[in-house]
Amino acid sequence: MADVVLAVDIGGTKTAVGLADADDVILDEIAGPTPGSAGPEAIIATVLQLSATLLDRMPEATLRGVGIGTAGVVDVGSGSIISATETLAGWAGTRLADAVRAGLAGRLAPGAVVHVQNDVDAHAAGEHRHGAAAGADSVLVVAVGTGVGAGIILGGRALRGARHVAGEIAHVPTPGAEHLRCPCGRRGHLEAIGSGIGLYRHYLSLGGDPDEVDARGVAARAARGEALAVRAVRDSAAAVGRAIAAAVTLLDPERVVITGGVPDIGHHWWQPMDDAFRAEVIDALQTVPLVPGTLGPHAPLRGAAASAWAALKGIS
Amino acid sequence: MADVVLAVDIGGTKTAVGLADADDVILDEIAGPTPGSAGPEAIIATVLQLSATLLDRMPEATLRGVGIGTAGVVDVGSGSIISATETLAGWAGTRLADAVRAGLAGRLAPGAVVHVQNDVDAHAAGEHRHGAAAGADSVLVVAVGTGVGAGIILGGRALRGARHVAGEIAHVPTPGAEHLRCPCGRRGHLEAIGSGIGLYRHYLSLGGDPDEVDARGVAARAARGEALAVRAVRDSAAAVGRAIAAAVTLLDPERVVITGGVPDIGHHWWQPMDDAFRAEVIDALQTVPLVPGTLGPHAPLRGAAASAWAALKGIS
Repeated sequence: MADVVLAVDIGGTKTAVGLADADDVILDEIAGPTPGSAGPEAIIATVLQLSATLLDRMPEATLRGVGIGTAGVVDVGSGSIISATETLAGWAGTRLADAVRAGLAGRLAPGAVVHVQNDVDAHAAGEHRHGAAAGADSVLVVAVGTGVGAGIILGGRALRGARHVAGEIAHVPTPGAEHLRCPCGRRGHLEAIGSGIGLYRHYLSLGGDPDEVDARGVAARAARGEALAVRAVRDSAAAVGRAIAAAVTLLDPERVVITGGVPDIGHHWWQPMDDAFRAEVIDALQTVPLVPGTLGPHAPLRGAAASAWAALKGIS
Repeated sequence: MADVVLAVDIGGTKTAVGLADADDVILDEIAGPTPGSAGPEAIIATVLQLSATLLDRMPEATLRGVGIGTAGVVDVGSGSIISATETLAGWAGTRLADAVRAGLAGRLAPGAVVHVQNDVDAHAAGEHRHGAAAGADSVLVVAVGTGVGAGIILGGRALRGARHVAGEIAHVPTPGAEHLRCPCGRRGHLEAIGSGIGLYRHYLSLGGDPDEVDARGVAARAARGEALAVRAVRDSAAAVGRAIAAAVTLLDPERVVITGGVPDIGHHWWQPMDDAFRAEVIDALQTVPLVPGTLGPHAPLRGAAASAWAALKGIS
């Protein structure tokens, strides 16, 4: 009769569900495409189906709660979605915690919790509980992938913000991004150049090969020594370093953890990112460690699980 | 036998000392020049002399503590100075709390506290306790004067940072400041264009009248309609708005309070600052109020007093 929680990671393209033990170890997991354009009912149905499959595989488990990380802006208190990009159509306004609680009514143990947070915050919670941020009282976790996001942990707790949008590093005005449009519609924000899509668009803006299709391809060209691709990667990484410098200058966190697909480019990306950071921060902040995440794609699931267990203990 | 605390504000040019009651009302105050180039002993002697004068004027008072706000980076836990600019020569390393406690040994009541913090944090504490930030759970207080500084209050408490330098908004990389050197030696930081000195230097960099001597003069020229001065004020203010946008995007505070001599320029400064802020922040943050401070130069003294009383109650 092992106590478990369900850990859910709802992304723009993929939804993953895991069953986690009390140490947030993922005992079993399953994933499927997120039906992002089909509306919230379809997304919730996907979560419930994946959950049911997992629970059926472990019938002896006692389900003590559910921890969910989802794309979009989340009101953690009510477990509802405040806003989201068009990738998840109609997601804003969804009372996700209530819907999942209702959908799992027959499965949840008495007193079970359903905890919902933003996916980058779940990612940060995972790295903070078990990964590269473990033991830090304060940490900035930056995820650089298709988009850019950050989770901020201060005094051991996630900073959510007065309007639930703390950590929106994507939209920090960043020198070097002025020529590119951000998904929010404005120019010059970090995400316009620092995300995978931003890196790719910057490559094209430099006059790169128009047959190239994505950041992965630009990274491969950089690895082969194509000068324009090397420059695109360097400029994109430097913008990330500069925005991290802004955040570190304001927050003075113990350390910074950087994760996501873009840092996986490796040295060609990490070195200019780190150089740009060091070039900007004052002497007192030169010692701030910038370290890669260690949990990889498991971070959001483990963080969602950790938050569910914490909520069960009354720690929000 | 009224209970009072001493409130001390040690700035680069002036040191002010007040006697405050339990509501942080300044009952009496006195100020003198800070002997910044004469070394820490001289600065401490100034604080003690000013304090003695005030205490002699109110012999019946019971001195329950001292609250100090000082220029420089402060370790609040030990009450010592981590670092400071050359304006206060040799200030780094000064065990200020210990020195003031020793110097006031015959005056302090049993169990009295000596609390030391950065002057901008004291300013923020004052506005938070009694001014424009009152009642806010989270607030960003930005002081724009000779330099630029910020105090960050989250969950009702000051964010100090892992290295005691949280809130160093002066050194946030800010688009539009690339052509100017920051006092820290780097280019492109907010303070290089956003401070009073930065505004003045930007005016000169635009080809302004070389006979002009300071930001006050540039502001007067702008008020008279000199196009170059209007532009210098506008660019400087916009940079402040852009850096505040970066901070708000990361922190999502309930509100932002802006104080200091430069905002006193008025509409010519405030409007482009606000416009630049609104142009940068995402929709969810358009509602963040930017409001002027209400305590003026009394804010640091009242904040230092409030922090002393809080420390006496065991709230750090």
